[in-house]
Amino acid sequence: MGKKDDRKKADRKKADGGLRSLLRLPQDRVDLAEYDTRATPGGPDGKTTALAEMVRLRERLAGLQERLYAQSTAGDPRSLLLVLQGMDTSGKGGTVKHVAAGLNPTGVRVTAFKAPTAEESQHPFLWRIRKALPKPGEIGVFDRSHYEDVLIARVRELVPEATWSRRYGVINRFEQSLADDGVTVVKVFLHISYEEQRKRLLARLDNPDKHWKFNEGDIAERALWPAYQQAYEAALTRCSTDTAPWYVVPADRKWYRNWAVAQLLLEHLELIGPQYPKADFDVAACRAALLRT
Amino acid sequence: MGKKDDRKKADRKKADGGLRSLLRLPQDRVDLAEYDTRATPGGPDGKTTALAEMVRLRERLAGLQERLYAQSTAGDPRSLLLVLQGMDTSGKGGTVKHVAAGLNPTGVRVTAFKAPTAEESQHPFLWRIRKALPKPGEIGVFDRSHYEDVLIARVRELVPEATWSRRYGVINRFEQSLADDGVTVVKVFLHISYEEQRKRLLARLDNPDKHWKFNEGDIAERALWPAYQQAYEAALTRCSTDTAPWYVVPADRKWYRNWAVAQLLLEHLELIGPQYPKADFDVAACRAALLRT
Repeated sequence: MGKKDDRKKADRKKADGGLRSLLRLPQDRVDLAEYDTRATPGGPDGKTTALAEMVRLRERLAGLQERLYAQSTAGDPRSLLLVLQGMDTSGKGGTVKHVAAGLNPTGVRVTAFKAPTAEESQHPFLWRIRKALPKPGEIGVFDRSHYEDVLIARVRELVPEATWSRRYGVINRFEQSLADDGVTVVKVFLHISYEEQRKRLLARLDNPDKHWKFNEGDIAERALWPAYQQAYEAALTRCSTDTAPWYVVPADRKWYRNWAVAQLLLEHLELIGPQYPKADFDVAACRAALLRT
Repeated sequence: MGKKDDRKKADRKKADGGLRSLLRLPQDRVDLAEYDTRATPGGPDGKTTALAEMVRLRERLAGLQERLYAQSTAGDPRSLLLVLQGMDTSGKGGTVKHVAAGLNPTGVRVTAFKAPTAEESQHPFLWRIRKALPKPGEIGVFDRSHYEDVLIARVRELVPEATWSRRYGVINRFEQSLADDGVTVVKVFLHISYEEQRKRLLARLDNPDKHWKFNEGDIAERALWPAYQQAYEAALTRCSTDTAPWYVVPADRKWYRNWAVAQLLLEHLELIGPQYPKADFDVAACRAALLRT
């Protein structure tokens, strides 16, 4: 089958269930090595088109966000949580910058999770996560998340296997409870290749303005690449539920990555279908009263 | 003196101490009624120019914000807190949207303070404020703030005079402590006229998509306009210090308001003068090590 046929197939799928159905993690065993990290499934045909589409997407996102916020003022509990995971340099921070920058910052709550603090370590792993959840009407963004507790915690053996192996179930129940509370959880794995990571780390070294983003430890961590991929496969597979599925976004091309995450966000907001609340007051009477002031 | 001379004078002032010196609250007694809320001191000559300048300002703000964030990763404690106050419909939310929307949301922490919750009411008035302060490297934005505790609290007599009258000093010491901790506090009063508020409330009533922003209580509140202006005059005068002066931004024209707040933000970030931190590792050695992976 040629490239053109692939594209047609992709477009068909997109028409059926949007980019959601196209990027959703398959039910069967996942082999991340099989994914083409430079692919652009369902996406615009190049960077120029993607940037133009982003302008349009941002406008639509801003409109939906305002409605989401507006309806919360009338008591609607719904919110959205975007979870971004991926290897170092996969572009979690860049995605936040490009996708969320057009939103109204008052309704956006971004949390970048680092190594747990002493205080955080004294609590169950979901403690700091719960504190950072979006409130009704808000869009929350997690740059790293509770998944670190089954990723680095597993690879680096920060806790015994008996502990991390229980966490998959804990996470699934937690995310179900979020859904019950009206939180739409959108989980995105930004998938880059081993080669692309090297390229990006080198680029950081070559630009003094980016040295602050570089960490010597990142080099040693690359030796653990296979273990991390395995940990990701386990996390993605075991925690991709109907309630909160995982989406795999090929992320070697930044323009596709930004477009795809914006598009996924849009589709989920459209599913929520937020509406401006109706006035709970007499508009004409208020108008007359105002004119008397 | 003609309009042209006024403009020249404004430009001269701007060259001396920036928009900061032009909009800073004067030392002597303040009469808010004397301010022209439609004025555009030091600003672009119209909406079109202002919008073009905003694009340029946003880019510069984003660059400075990245440096501010970057230097915090190397231990620099500095941050910035933008405090927005103003009567209902003065455009606090709109300012956040237009000024902060170009920033990287990961480094921005916006808090819109509402009437205190039951829990907040059980604590001293600065308790909820302290919890919302920006961390090192962040830009915090307060849509309303601790000043509500000497504004509505005074006008509506929510606490005895003995309580609110002590708060001016408490606020000044608090803001001094913030400065000591490396927080640059930029306090902006968005000044609209009584007529302009009516116009904006009517516009909300006339657009069903804006009904959610309308509150019946806003009409009755207008009867207290003089009392609020008086409370603002007291707060602005008593809490405009060398450490954290108040800026009065004429806000009837939205394009000027957005431009002026962005410009004030820029000038304060430039005073901080954030720098990318130097590498604390051997760049060449890391480069070689990376190529071996």
